[in-house]
Amino acid sequence: MNETYMKLAIELAGAAAGQTSPNPLVGCVIVKQGEVIGMGAHLKAGEKHAERHALAMAGEKAAGAEMYVTLEPCSHTGRTPPCADAVVEAGIKKVYIGSVDPDSRVAGKGIQKLQNAGIEVVTGVMKEEADSLNRIFFHYAVNKKPYVTLKMATSIDGKIATVDGESQWITGTAARLDGHKLRHLHDAILVGIETVLADNPSLTTRLPQGGKNPLRIVLDSRLRVSKEATVIKDGGETWIFTTEQADTEKVEEIRAAGVKLTVVPGFRVPVEEVLIKLGEAEITSLLVEGGGTIHDSFLRAGILNEIVHYSAPLLIGGNSAPQAVSGQGLSRLAEVPRYNLAATEILGDDMKHVYYRKE
Amino acid sequence: MNETYMKLAIELAGAAAGQTSPNPLVGCVIVKQGEVIGMGAHLKAGEKHAERHALAMAGEKAAGAEMYVTLEPCSHTGRTPPCADAVVEAGIKKVYIGSVDPDSRVAGKGIQKLQNAGIEVVTGVMKEEADSLNRIFFHYAVNKKPYVTLKMATSIDGKIATVDGESQWITGTAARLDGHKLRHLHDAILVGIETVLADNPSLTTRLPQGGKNPLRIVLDSRLRVSKEATVIKDGGETWIFTTEQADTEKVEEIRAAGVKLTVVPGFRVPVEEVLIKLGEAEITSLLVEGGGTIHDSFLRAGILNEIVHYSAPLLIGGNSAPQAVSGQGLSRLAEVPRYNLAATEILGDDMKHVYYRKE
Repeated sequence: MNETYMKLAIELAGAAAGQTSPNPLVGCVIVKQGEVIGMGAHLKAGEKHAERHALAMAGEKAAGAEMYVTLEPCSHTGRTPPCADAVVEAGIKKVYIGSVDPDSRVAGKGIQKLQNAGIEVVTGVMKEEADSLNRIFFHYAVNKKPYVTLKMATSIDGKIATVDGESQWITGTAARLDGHKLRHLHDAILVGIETVLADNPSLTTRLPQGGKNPLRIVLDSRLRVSKEATVIKDGGETWIFTTEQADTEKVEEIRAAGVKLTVVPGFRVPVEEVLIKLGEAEITSLLVEGGGTIHDSFLRAGILNEIVHYSAPLLIGGNSAPQAVSGQGLSRLAEVPRYNLAATEILGDDMKHVYYRKE
Repeated sequence: MNETYMKLAIELAGAAAGQTSPNPLVGCVIVKQGEVIGMGAHLKAGEKHAERHALAMAGEKAAGAEMYVTLEPCSHTGRTPPCADAVVEAGIKKVYIGSVDPDSRVAGKGIQKLQNAGIEVVTGVMKEEADSLNRIFFHYAVNKKPYVTLKMATSIDGKIATVDGESQWITGTAARLDGHKLRHLHDAILVGIETVLADNPSLTTRLPQGGKNPLRIVLDSRLRVSKEATVIKDGGETWIFTTEQADTEKVEEIRAAGVKLTVVPGFRVPVEEVLIKLGEAEITSLLVEGGGTIHDSFLRAGILNEIVHYSAPLLIGGNSAPQAVSGQGLSRLAEVPRYNLAATEILGDDMKHVYYRKE
């Protein structure tokens, strides 16, 4: 066993981050007598799985070779036929696996199929890295609700603007560009109506190399959005959640503008309800981008899986300066969810910290 | 030239951090034919300088040897005779210097003295590290006011307590212990009266190995402090700044309790004024430890040289939750002072970030 190959498989898988939803990220490397004879990654739902790309590259050499694959090969017929069968047919001798699939349709059955065919299987190779790669997919497979990432860009003291409302720019260009990568990596992006009214954002992915635009979600309990807002006028996909407080005519007007509009009972849109609806629509990941009151709603609902924090090296001060997480807040420290630092990076003058929720 | 020896000299100097004020940190290594023959550091004001300790260790071997010293040897007679003379007398052949002394009484004169005696001098060896070591001393030498460090321990979103005021504990034991090191490293510590009334802190250095207690400074414009407060009763040194608003009898009472009390005109104690008074008392460094309004006063006065931020991996939220920097705040981003990240460290579950003010 050689971790170099699994590391390579993880890199292949990660290269497609953001483009495989609702499918997982999978990478595969086939090795024979110390030579790499096949490599593959799953690139897009409905297209070939990683194992099949790698087996195609290896061709007849695959017989007697060893395979490194980041995720247990599938055993069921989904959009494509089962990979486990293809691995058996190709004559692979031994398979090293990173993560075991938590999808109940697969869960161990792929491994069983390989073993039944006499293939030696080793699981848990670089498990932590492989699991982290598919934290979104695994969360969705188990919960049928999107994995939620909170993005915040603040001063050292947690402010997102000065007392006079100046916010452009606290973080530098490198951090802001990285924020666009997050949009590419998530199926959907969510903001509150205050952000739409204040900034009229497009919420699209603007990277030099292009990128996938996330579905835009706006929480707007009284349907105050204008049909001239960029998220409505630019032709991209937008989904607005409002309540019975919304004016009926306005509901029709916004629907007529091409927006998917969901009306829920009561005075406020419960974020838990939004997650259920997004889950039903096969949205596996959601990026929450503000403002402070929206962040607070997600915090108090206990549904933040990940925090991405861009921190600029300055203090702004001011009791009334807008904060990254405002609203009602949590009262008791014992109830505050704890996170683990997963990654840290210097971006220009700023820092990026990524936190995963503690299990 | 070998940077290993300068690195060693810097480590020797750093070992005495916190105990040499108002003198600089200096380390010295003497090398002959690839062997270390002398090492020394300045340990305490009034005691031997680093060069003299190292020369004493080297003895007669010093003749013809090379010296690595983090700071230009002194040329004037202060509490001890000039080191430059001792270096010449010992027959040192070549001297490598880290920082040039910014003290106008020395500034280049030590180097001149060595060169006049025929010693080869190389300056600027690991200059950045050597300068950083003495950032407090250099700041004080130039400005005659203390170097100011702001310490804050917050959640990711910059809160220091929940909306209900719970603050024990946001950061873990490792971060809190590190905070005591900061006290050892500074000549004085400053808090506002709100902190004294709310927490009745001792503001002493509590490290397993002991440590130097900083002089305690309390800003208390209306002199609301109780003579039963720990900072008054425990017998340690405390200096309170108040204004003419203070009750005259209370002024006498607090003075009688052994506190050095300074009364300034007006309604508020200007932090700039405090720095001038501390500078006159040869206080070279000041650790500011809260609360949020005090931090804001220092921020707005533009006198924060360093920020030490302990960040705990959690969000607290709440618009009214106490913030690390509250008060009036800065209005315009263009006026906000910028900092450079100088160091970062993982302490248990928390992170420590150190920022130096950009020149």
